[in-house]
Amino acid sequence: MNMSTNLKVIDVDVHNQLKCSDDLLPFLPEPWKSQVARTGIGIPDRGYPSPVGVIRKDCTPPSGGPAASDPEFLVKDLIEPFNIEYAILTGNMMDVSTMHDPDYAAVIASAYNDYLISKWLSMHPSFRGSIVVATQDPILAVREIDRMAEHPEIVGIVIGSAQRTLLGQRQFHPIYEAAERHRLPIAIHPGGEGAGISSAPTASGYPTRYIEYHTILSQNYMAHVTSLVCEGVFEKFPNLKFVCLEGGIAWLPHLMWRLDKNYKGLRSSVPWLKRLPSEYIRSNCLFSTQPIEEPENPKDLLTIFDMIDAENILMFSSDYPHWDNDDPSKILRGLSAEAKNKIFYQNAKNLYNLS
Amino acid sequence: MNMSTNLKVIDVDVHNQLKCSDDLLPFLPEPWKSQVARTGIGIPDRGYPSPVGVIRKDCTPPSGGPAASDPEFLVKDLIEPFNIEYAILTGNMMDVSTMHDPDYAAVIASAYNDYLISKWLSMHPSFRGSIVVATQDPILAVREIDRMAEHPEIVGIVIGSAQRTLLGQRQFHPIYEAAERHRLPIAIHPGGEGAGISSAPTASGYPTRYIEYHTILSQNYMAHVTSLVCEGVFEKFPNLKFVCLEGGIAWLPHLMWRLDKNYKGLRSSVPWLKRLPSEYIRSNCLFSTQPIEEPENPKDLLTIFDMIDAENILMFSSDYPHWDNDDPSKILRGLSAEAKNKIFYQNAKNLYNLS
Repeated sequence: MNMSTNLKVIDVDVHNQLKCSDDLLPFLPEPWKSQVARTGIGIPDRGYPSPVGVIRKDCTPPSGGPAASDPEFLVKDLIEPFNIEYAILTGNMMDVSTMHDPDYAAVIASAYNDYLISKWLSMHPSFRGSIVVATQDPILAVREIDRMAEHPEIVGIVIGSAQRTLLGQRQFHPIYEAAERHRLPIAIHPGGEGAGISSAPTASGYPTRYIEYHTILSQNYMAHVTSLVCEGVFEKFPNLKFVCLEGGIAWLPHLMWRLDKNYKGLRSSVPWLKRLPSEYIRSNCLFSTQPIEEPENPKDLLTIFDMIDAENILMFSSDYPHWDNDDPSKILRGLSAEAKNKIFYQNAKNLYNLS
Repeated sequence: MNMSTNLKVIDVDVHNQLKCSDDLLPFLPEPWKSQVARTGIGIPDRGYPSPVGVIRKDCTPPSGGPAASDPEFLVKDLIEPFNIEYAILTGNMMDVSTMHDPDYAAVIASAYNDYLISKWLSMHPSFRGSIVVATQDPILAVREIDRMAEHPEIVGIVIGSAQRTLLGQRQFHPIYEAAERHRLPIAIHPGGEGAGISSAPTASGYPTRYIEYHTILSQNYMAHVTSLVCEGVFEKFPNLKFVCLEGGIAWLPHLMWRLDKNYKGLRSSVPWLKRLPSEYIRSNCLFSTQPIEEPENPKDLLTIFDMIDAENILMFSSDYPHWDNDDPSKILRGLSAEAKNKIFYQNAKNLYNLS
């Protein structure tokens, strides 16, 4: 238990869940309300069942319902035992961006955001919220950001990494203008890759099983980060921050080196860049710990940390209540006290402007 | 110049090219012969023009025609100055696997293989050939491997990494049975990602420019390697070797660690695996140097080398005559003499059984 070490913790990826789709009904207009009441929400399923499930069974609340659907039990099971000062609630609705109908996707995102404020954010002082936006129609997404951003417990935006097009591309820029204007970081979260309107999960189609699917999710992050940098998003919106949740980090040396090298040869095609690509990654992108890579020799991970200056771009996440979630007292041993404090606490505190 | 150091060199990725599509006519049956004479070959174009071109202009032979289309000039421009004992000719036809018509793709592959033997392999003692096969119809691919494999200067098979489905999947296994039976390593080479019948180059669609496209090619390798291991290809064909050309290597620690970790949690879905995934990668996959990642601090690359035991899985490639090709005397300084000899020479000599 980490309390003995006085480690202060902010958890940047906690998956609060609906008890059932009826939770959204009070926040839905017609005709969507009747549709959801009849048939559920219908976010496309990716079709990669995990042999161990994706939710820890021991997180089921005594009150019933799915894991992480009861705020009171979530406090008892996660917040209190791990002494978490703030939990950034990311929900499980970010894959609205894989839905075929942009209006329906936007309505589901709005209903979830109202539900988040009404049913979660007032329930415990540690809770902070990420609003979900659907990216299919950026104008509707901007409207939703403007509607929700000033709520005092809303600290960020979360979108699925499963997208029809890469996140650097121009149609998304109005969303980034709004996010920067409201000082809201944008977190991307995996899970819907290959579902609905998103492309196949790899350049060579669909993996066969969850183990392959889950392993190669990080490649979508590599593609998004490359796109965000090369399209000049961070020149256009220098104060915008992206948070890559659950995508791993040990691929960063490869990507930074390969991209910097290519930039040196091909910079004429991206004349808006004024710095090396890796510098934009370091200044505008942050990453979460879970699922952290676990080499046979734990020192190898710390070596990678040094290469990417991890103590300034990494933030702790538990990913509660997912199957592979991390206990903050058991990961990342061997870091200096200062690095640990930044990764478990200070980086998130600064990013989300938590007092 | 490396001759002064007596560095022995085998180059595992040299892109001999056709002078023009008419070069294949003598080897094509009708109706394809008349079609190619009329309209060219028609391998799908990926549509990512490079601002600097993909071919070095200074490699144009004095005799005319494209770079690397004149065996005599290739010897003068690459083989002799860099003291290359063997050059594995990989050609530029591997993206036949992105063609829509499996019969036409197989015929083009066969014609190219006959052309390779007739126009290249007898021209210089350093030349060794990789036959191309089209993967759309594995039965035709097996027939082609059986037809060509016993030629004494054929030492391997090359296929595009641009595929409709991931290379571990079952429809490809007859190809692997044939390759293992003939002791021919299978090299995969990038370039056609997103073209023809292959999927979009990323899980979120199409990158905008060549710089992004070229940077994230490595993610397709991550997906193929994951697929090959998890589908049990190396349990079924333990003597089969794959060579990942031009995909980079610094992503290997990430992939090995993430895959091993997931295997520990999810092994029930891949019960045919008897070792950790990373062990199959180390025993059955090799990688080529070009384009080698270039960190600001060159020691960081050597640190990655240690993590992945690079001296036993890496082989030198020049990628001549591509725009970013590498001079063997200028890369990978700082390696021990033993590691250098393995990477520049011995690993390829063993793999391709070169006397």
